[in-house]
Order: sequence, then structure tokens, then C-alpha cells
Amino acid sequence: MIVLAVDCMGGDHGLSVTLPACRQFLDNHPDAQLLLVGRPDDLQGFAHERARVVPATEVVAMEDAVEVALRKKKDSSMRVAIQQVKDGAAQAAVSAGNTGALMAIARYLLKTLEGIERPAIATQMPNAKGSATTVLDLGANVDCTAEHLLQFAVMGSALVSVLKNDDQPTVGLLNIGEEAIKGSDEIKRAGELLRAAKASGDLNFIGNVEGNDIFKGTADIVVCDGFVGNVALKTSEGLAMMIVQFLREEFSRNLLTKLAAAVSYPVLSALKKRMDHRRYNGAALLGLRGLVFKSHGSADAVAFEQALCRAYDAASHQLLARVQSRIAHAAPLLAAPARPAVPSVA
Amino acid sequence: MIVLAVDCMGGDHGLSVTLPACRQFLDNHPDAQLLLVGRPDDLQGFAHERARVVPATEVVAMEDAVEVALRKKKDSSMRVAIQQVKDGAAQAAVSAGNTGALMAIARYLLKTLEGIERPAIATQMPNAKGSATTVLDLGANVDCTAEHLLQFAVMGSALVSVLKNDDQPTVGLLNIGEEAIKGSDEIKRAGELLRAAKASGDLNFIGNVEGNDIFKGTADIVVCDGFVGNVALKTSEGLAMMIVQFLREEFSRNLLTKLAAAVSYPVLSALKKRMDHRRYNGAALLGLRGLVFKSHGSADAVAFEQALCRAYDAASHQLLARVQSRIAHAAPLLAAPARPAVPSVA
Repeated sequence: MIVLAVDCMGGDHGLSVTLPACRQFLDNHPDAQLLLVGRPDDLQGFAHERARVVPATEVVAMEDAVEVALRKKKDSSMRVAIQQVKDGAAQAAVSAGNTGALMAIARYLLKTLEGIERPAIATQMPNAKGSATTVLDLGANVDCTAEHLLQFAVMGSALVSVLKNDDQPTVGLLNIGEEAIKGSDEIKRAGELLRAAKASGDLNFIGNVEGNDIFKGTADIVVCDGFVGNVALKTSEGLAMMIVQFLREEFSRNLLTKLAAAVSYPVLSALKKRMDHRRYNGAALLGLRGLVFKSHGSADAVAFEQALCRAYDAASHQLLARVQSRIAHAAPLLAAPARPAVPSVA
Repeated sequence: MIVLAVDCMGGDHGLSVTLPACRQFLDNHPDAQLLLVGRPDDLQGFAHERARVVPATEVVAMEDAVEVALRKKKDSSMRVAIQQVKDGAAQAAVSAGNTGALMAIARYLLKTLEGIERPAIATQMPNAKGSATTVLDLGANVDCTAEHLLQFAVMGSALVSVLKNDDQPTVGLLNIGEEAIKGSDEIKRAGELLRAAKASGDLNFIGNVEGNDIFKGTADIVVCDGFVGNVALKTSEGLAMMIVQFLREEFSRNLLTKLAAAVSYPVLSALKKRMDHRRYNGAALLGLRGLVFKSHGSADAVAFEQALCRAYDAASHQLLARVQSRIAHAAPLLAAPARPAVPSVA
């Protein structure tokens, strides 16, 4: 039995999205159980034999400062959901709330794994191969050292080994050119560490990749600092929205184009389905001593259910143990000095 | 009379693209004159009363290292074209060659403007408002200080004042959230400098913007370091290519979808035209004592002609003088200490 703790109050739409998603999820997963965290009055109407209400009197608002969420709202649905993971009552927590608050509370309650300095946020983006590229970090860390990027690569590999059932997923380092000499000093040093991790069998590193490779699907995992990852994600969202707007405008221009839209309906809806960001909802907070998944704040019920599925998959495939074992295997590298030491002659 | 020096040998396609583009450009610009730089044997077939061949015996290859281009190929078409600007024989140079080599040679020959430490590359990206957003830097500088970002903002404003005929174009600072407290220390400090520049009337700074704002058209100019800008640009190219591939696949799936494609032809070609990256070809190298424009290496004749038009517009609207005058106006800020000094009580 997989048990997930759900922050039912979080996100832009709260209960109106989380509860229908929970019901759909339970119907599709007969071996799953949900802990519905939130105000009991709001949740009592939800009756299901595999769901149980866990009370929480407060709600972290989308605009709450991290400090407020962490220090003042100690009985928030977000915090109580993560506490369930810490207490062993649930294998994973899912929330659509404020990302900064979620990361801060998760880090405070669960602590980071041995060997990990900074947790990271990993998400999936669709690629031209019909698959998905996992990108991390997405904004948890604005300044990263080469060692952090190596840790992200190891954690991302563990995540993808679960999602894709592939033990040697490929890793690319996001850079501004394919040549090893490109990028800042920190990026070049990250390249050295990643090459060492390939040599030691810890990673299937394929070298530098560029922004377009995310959508080409050149590597299963693309590693970058949180600033760059966040910009890449948001830029893509902006471009996709603009293209949808252009398509809508062009197809509604006059009677003929409207007719074309009607004739093209099956094509356009197939395209929409392939591009549907809801299918990729559910970012993993990696590097913590417990599983936490973040849904997009504006998720609808279909998207939120995806985030629940992702948490379920991670829990049922022992993502935490896999991350820990990969981190342990790579420990000599993660603890190594920045530059390879001169080999001892002893 | 506007005179442009054209590196006819550069780019993936060389003469087969540059020469037809030059002819079209001359036909459309009766007051323009071109200096065609390259191997005389290759160029002698191009006869036009407003074109003159300037011989250069070497060609910088797309894969040449910057050092090779700069130190070994002293008679390259790229270098000779830029030399024309330095000598005052042309008001601007245009090349589709290797970006790194072009920037290095331009910097070496022309030097940077007073008050500018680092030249930047600025390009335009289409936005949902039907206009274009100017983004810089696009990869010339991987590590930037707050002062560099302020210089980019000032130079970008001068460029857009020419392109859009608007003296107070809006400037946004690319960040991972709209709040002033977001981002790395350097980005926060850049925000302080940009706010000071708004207060002194040097810039129309509107605050932080996120990746999606590039395509929303929230600001006329988006400022970022070259690493982030390059990733944003390449990521967008990758997504656009994937969407085009998906559209093509979905429309060619069977007889019915092919029929839909035929009916939708006017819509799809209108969309293609709106999204056509060739319309945005021609990035400006800003901060040098001379005008240099970079065409995409894979540009076709239509795209290369756009780059020529952009250089023509810049030269005919005195872009160089405008950049200089804005930089001079902002000099007290650019020379200011990183943090505002304590006001003197004298």
C-alpha cells in the first residue's frame, strides 16, 4: 500500500482542484491511500474508504513570504503534509502551494540527505523524440558550484531511472556551446567533475548540451543552476503561449479560416495533447530525506492528478533509496577536492 | 549615402547567400552602397554601380578557434570588412561568420567605447504584442557584474530608440521572480543600479521580468548575462522547431489530416510568416567604436538581407552617436561605486 499526504488547501484553486484529482487518483490506483491534509470542515464531505482527513488549521498563501510560512504558520496544510512523511505515516507529500515555502519547510522538517548540500527541483519537459527531458535545478538554487551541479546530475539520474526504467540515463551539462572550453569557470569545472563521474561509472555523462537540446531530447537529464533552469522553463512557457495565441488568432480571422479550424480540429487537438503541459505536472524536490512533489500552482484537476501519479510512481519504485544508493556510490567524487589530487606514490 | 562593408565569404553558405542578398538590398535601398569583401575571383561576377569589391584572401571558417581567426588570418574577409569601418570607408560591417571570431576581431580593431567594459550582442525576438523584444547579452559575456548589466541596459535603450523610434523604451531585468528580493546578489545589485538609472532619467526601467515576459512583450529591452541570454535564445529555437515538427507530423498523418493541411494552408503560412525567425535576423554588437552586425550563420538570402537592413537602419539613424551620448549621460552612474555612498554633509 502506497500512502500519499496531500496538501488539499494549496495552489491557486485549492479544494476545487485537489479533491476531484484525489478521487480520480484513488479510482485509478486501488493500492493507494491518501491522507487529505486541511481544514476538517472543508474536507469532511470527501468520503472514500482509502482516504483519511488529517487536520491542519492554517493555509500557506501563494504570496506568503517564506519566513511567514516557516515561522508563523506552524499548523499549515503544507507543513502538516510534509510532517506525515517525516513521521513515516506517508511515503510522499504533494502540494500545489508556493514553491519557496514548500522547499523551505521540506528542508527544515526533512533535512537533506547525507552528501547533498542543496536540494534541487526537477521537472520534465516534452521533447521531439516523443519522450521527456528531465531538467534540474528549476529555481531552488540561484548560485551553484560545480559540486552542486554534480549532485544534481546524480539525483536526476536516480529520478529518471525510476521514471524511465533505465539504469543508465544520459546526462548533459547545459552550456553555451558543445566544446568543453565553453562557459564560465564554474561550468568548466562542473564538466571536469561530470567526466570523472562518467569514468567512475557513476553517471552516463554525454558532455555539454545547449538550450535547444532540451527539446531535441539529446540527453535524458539536463543539469543547470536554478537561475538558468528557471529562465529556460519560463521562456519556453512564454513562447508556447505566444504560439497558441497566434494559432488562435490566425484560425479565427474570417469565415474561411474558421472553416479550416473546424476541418483541422482532429489535428489541432492531437497537437494540443502532445504539447499539454498538464501531462508533465509534478516536479520532484530531490535531495531530502523524504519524497515531496510540487504541482504547478495553477494546475487543474487533470494536472494535479498527474502530480499525485508522479509521487506514487516515485514512492512505489523506492526513489528515495535509489537516490541514496547513487549518492553513496558517488560519495568519493562528491567529497573530492575541486581539482583532481596528484596520485599518491605510496 | 550609407556605405556597408559586407563579409561575403562568411556563414554556412557564403557567396550563394550573401550575393543574392546584396543585390536585393541594393535594389531596395537606392541611397546605399556596398563594399563586397572577399576573394576577387569569386566576386568579379557581381556587377552593380553601387557595389565595389574590396579584396581579402582568407576566410574565417565556422569552426576556426578565435585565436586562429585573430592571429593567423589577418587578411580574412571578416577582418577586412571590419577594417573598412575602422578606416571610415564604411559606416557598418555585416558578417554571417563565427560569432566568437567576429566579436574578438571587432573588439581588437575597433576597441570599446569610453565607459564600456564589455561589448554585448543584442538580438530581437518576436512577442505576443506583434512587436519585438530586444534581448542582450546573447553570449558574449558569460559572467557579468551589476555594472555590466547596467551598461547593457543603456546600450540596448540606444539601439531600441533607433529601431522603434521611441526615446524612452522600457527595460526589464531578467530574473526568476518579479520581486526585488529575488535572484543572486549580483542581480539584486543590478536592480539597485537600474533603479538609480531610472531615478536619474537615464533609463525607463520597469523592474524584474521573467523568461515568459520576453515573449509577452512586457519590456522593450530585456537585460541578462550572456550565459542566460544564450540559453533563453537556444531553448526558444528548440521549442519552436519541436512545435513545427509536431505540426508537420500531425498534418501528414493520413489523407484526412493532409486535406486539413491543404484547407489550412493560408492560416499555416500566415502563422509561419509571423513566426519567421528570418525577419529578426541581424544581431548588433554594441559597445564598440563602430557598428558591426552579425547574421545567423545558417541565414538564407532573405534573412541575410534583413541583417543588411538592420545595419543600414542603425547607420542612417546614427546608432553609434546615440549609444555614445547615452553612455556619456549615464557616466556618473557607470562610474559610481557599487553601493550608494553615504551622502556628504558638507
